[in-house]
Amino acid sequence: MPCRSVRDCCSKSKVIIMLRNRLLDTAGRMTPIFQRQAHRPLSGITKSKLTTVEVDDKSGIATLSMNFPPVNTLTMELMHDMIDSINEIECNKSRGLILTSSNDKVFSAGLDLKELLNPERKRLEEFWTLFQDLWLALHLCGIPTAAAVNGHAPAAGCVLATACEYRTMLPNLFIGIHATRFSFVISKWMMLSYQSVIPRRVVERALNQGKLFRTEEALDVGLVDEVACNKQEALDKCATFIATFDKANPVARTLTKRMCREPDVRDLLNDRAGDLRDCVDYVTTPLFQEGLCAHLEGLKKSK
Amino acid sequence: MPCRSVRDCCSKSKVIIMLRNRLLDTAGRMTPIFQRQAHRPLSGITKSKLTTVEVDDKSGIATLSMNFPPVNTLTMELMHDMIDSINEIECNKSRGLILTSSNDKVFSAGLDLKELLNPERKRLEEFWTLFQDLWLALHLCGIPTAAAVNGHAPAAGCVLATACEYRTMLPNLFIGIHATRFSFVISKWMMLSYQSVIPRRVVERALNQGKLFRTEEALDVGLVDEVACNKQEALDKCATFIATFDKANPVARTLTKRMCREPDVRDLLNDRAGDLRDCVDYVTTPLFQEGLCAHLEGLKKSK
Amino acid sequence: MPCRSVRDCCSKSKVIIMLRNRLLDTAGRMTPIFQRQAHRPLSGITKSKLTTVEVDDKSGIATLSMNFPPVNTLTMELMHDMIDSINEIECNKSRGLILTSSNDKVFSAGLDLKELLNPERKRLEEFWTLFQDLWLALHLCGIPTAAAVNGHAPAAGCVLATACEYRTMLPNLFIGIHATRFSFVISKWMMLSYQSVIPRRVVERALNQGKLFRTEEALDVGLVDEVACNKQEALDKCATFIATFDKANPVARTLTKRMCREPDVRDLLNDRAGDLRDCVDYVTTPLFQEGLCAHLEGLKKSK
Repeated sequence: MPCRSVRDCCSKSKVIIMLRNRLLDTAGRMTPIFQRQAHRPLSGITKSKLTTVEVDDKSGIATLSMNFPPVNTLTMELMHDMIDSINEIECNKSRGLILTSSNDKVFSAGLDLKELLNPERKRLEEFWTLFQDLWLALHLCGIPTAAAVNGHAPAAGCVLATACEYRTMLPNLFIGIHATRFSFVISKWMMLSYQSVIPRRVVERALNQGKLFRTEEALDVGLVDEVACNKQEALDKCATFIATFDKANPVARTLTKRMCREPDVRDLLNDRAGDLRDCVDYVTTPLFQEGLCAHLEGLKKSK
Repeated sequence: MPCRSVRDCCSKSKVIIMLRNRLLDTAGRMTPIFQRQAHRPLSGITKSKLTTVEVDDKSGIATLSMNFPPVNTLTMELMHDMIDSINEIECNKSRGLILTSSNDKVFSAGLDLKELLNPERKRLEEFWTLFQDLWLALHLCGIPTAAAVNGHAPAAGCVLATACEYRTMLPNLFIGIHATRFSFVISKWMMLSYQSVIPRRVVERALNQGKLFRTEEALDVGLVDEVACNKQEALDKCATFIATFDKANPVARTLTKRMCREPDVRDLLNDRAGDLRDCVDYVTTPLFQEGLCAHLEGLKKSK
Repeated sequence: MPCRSVRDCCSKSKVIIMLRNRLLDTAGRMTPIFQRQAHRPLSGITKSKLTTVEVDDKSGIATLSMNFPPVNTLTMELMHDMIDSINEIECNKSRGLILTSSNDKVFSAGLDLKELLNPERKRLEEFWTLFQDLWLALHLCGIPTAAAVNGHAPAAGCVLATACEYRTMLPNLFIGIHATRFSFVISKWMMLSYQSVIPRRVVERALNQGKLFRTEEALDVGLVDEVACNKQEALDKCATFIATFDKANPVARTLTKRMCREPDVRDLLNDRAGDLRDCVDYVTTPLFQEGLCAHLEGLKKSK
């Protein structure tokens, strides 16, 4: 059976039931929500266009690096590559997934804001659906996930990090969802992703302010779990975290993870079209377009 | 278009949709949930009967003082004045709202308990609806809000403080929802307001005990954010907090705030009549009336 | 009127409404959710088969000891006795309930796993329903509850402790829900019980890992409230906790407690059959049966 994409799965609008009811295959065995495909085994380094997947043969952990200079902007192409890589890693039953960046200054600068500027409706819909897909693929990923945040992680960069189960971060960086600073209003599922990691009171204030946390502040509020001196140490800490699941049965772990995360994805999976419509309606308002223009002007000047 | 009251808005029973769907006006621009009225500009000091609104011309921040001796008991009149003042401040696009008391010993002593003693049903309904209105006006207020808690804040006094986005408090005061001590069972939305600020485990225990937190305890659990030495310092800290939103787009900020707070108000806005009925049914039980009598007797003796 | 069992109450499928709407009896007085029976007064020591109930005549607090050697495994018989004892203590209007163990090494080893091994469907249904009943009886118990965790509390042992309002624990013990280690996927209500005590982020990680917290770790994350040097000190701390409710009206306290806990029990009370079906479906999969076999083999070897 082919490896169904997140989008296929979700379009069936039964995902929520699948998440809840613990699917059984015809042999009465548990199956993960996203069917795994018989697939060429990963070994050594596989290069897709904009991501790199490296599997450690000893530990069985796959490291997924965003590799799209200059700042890993989440374009449609990068998001496509990331979803494919996540599915591939999941299908190949890696022991865990570490998300990091090939760029030592920026983890990911977030969504491609040019897609939000005077958008063509059809393309904006495709763009936002892809971002939903990416978040779902990472947030519900069946194997243990960790982020080695080795560069700045603003906006959607932070959303990707919070979709993982653990975060380590290098010093003197910024992480946070600063959407209100460029007039954007995030979706509820992005708020829930934030709230799955840091306390409600902190979330509200940070979202309203558009706060970017410095590494030390992020550690204080629990947005990151540990600080590492350098990228290798960050990767090592992620591997150590992934090893904490060694005594757990992998399928029971996956089902338990999804039960914990079901409240985060419930509304989105029940009404993906509604979230899409909200997004498109808001992005196409004069209010947002003016705010975005001013923000992009500001960025140009600061260069 | 006139400035619709919270009650008008909510009676349309579509508020929940308005909160969620980000209203657009006919020009495609965002509009806040409560329509703003063209209104005389505030400057200097405006006195209504039981509240004082002072706008700092330099900072643009409005300070709303409860000014109803001896202890700012929330009577129908005071609640009316507060709702009007909040709407006025919101409509005049102040940069923020600071809630405080003209009385240096008591922030607010809470609801007028005499309204709960052998109540006439019609009047009790009016009283409780007004309290719902007041809480909604403050909890969903479009501009940044902060409370300078310069006196004791028991029961509904605490509920008002927790409806703000930030709290600073003077030393040696008490704050908390001690309803069970006078046999009252609070509404779910009051619990959610508490829970938006302090952890669930602390909320349950404090509500069950009827706990009043001393300033230092309140700081420890996060019920207040900072302690100030005197009222001026408390007001200054509130102003500093309000300034943290300077980089955020105001409309995006308002919509984000309401998204964060939507779970707190959802059930109330979906069924205000149900909350009202629960309250009236409970208040008119012999159990509560006996408990309230005993409590009021105790207060008399302690004077 | 007879003391209705939790099961009777819940089968009426109106419990959720009862919880929310604050029941009134025909005289307009509040009544607790589970009707209390005229009952022989407890005094001194009452022995049922597998539990001991001791009421302190001075404090009015009842201590319920699990007394089923060797390790207080939750068999159908022990669960039956516990439910009866909880109902009896509640009906006799004790001032509080302390749950502890007669065994100084093990608080409770959790569910009787033999019931899950190659189960007969009918009996498994009865077993799981009884566990639901036990949790509901303790979680919604009308009087103040506290656990003196004087021995290890893995799995369902931990679930029982978290159903209480306060926990004190002796040093060098383990507590936690380690279900994934024996391939089990817990029900949502067990997750919610955990989450009512410790933060969401900690819950997800601990459940996924199947983590057993040492006493000191449990204190750090808030899973236990205090550490006691010995059993007597643990019991004393529980009694001190129960005394913190002295100023609260008992009925208002009960209704407030149930309002706080309503989100934890809502889904279960609305669909007990669904939770039962999920459990039976999962337990009877080859995946779980193989995982459980391996786990039981491991336990044998470690002896």
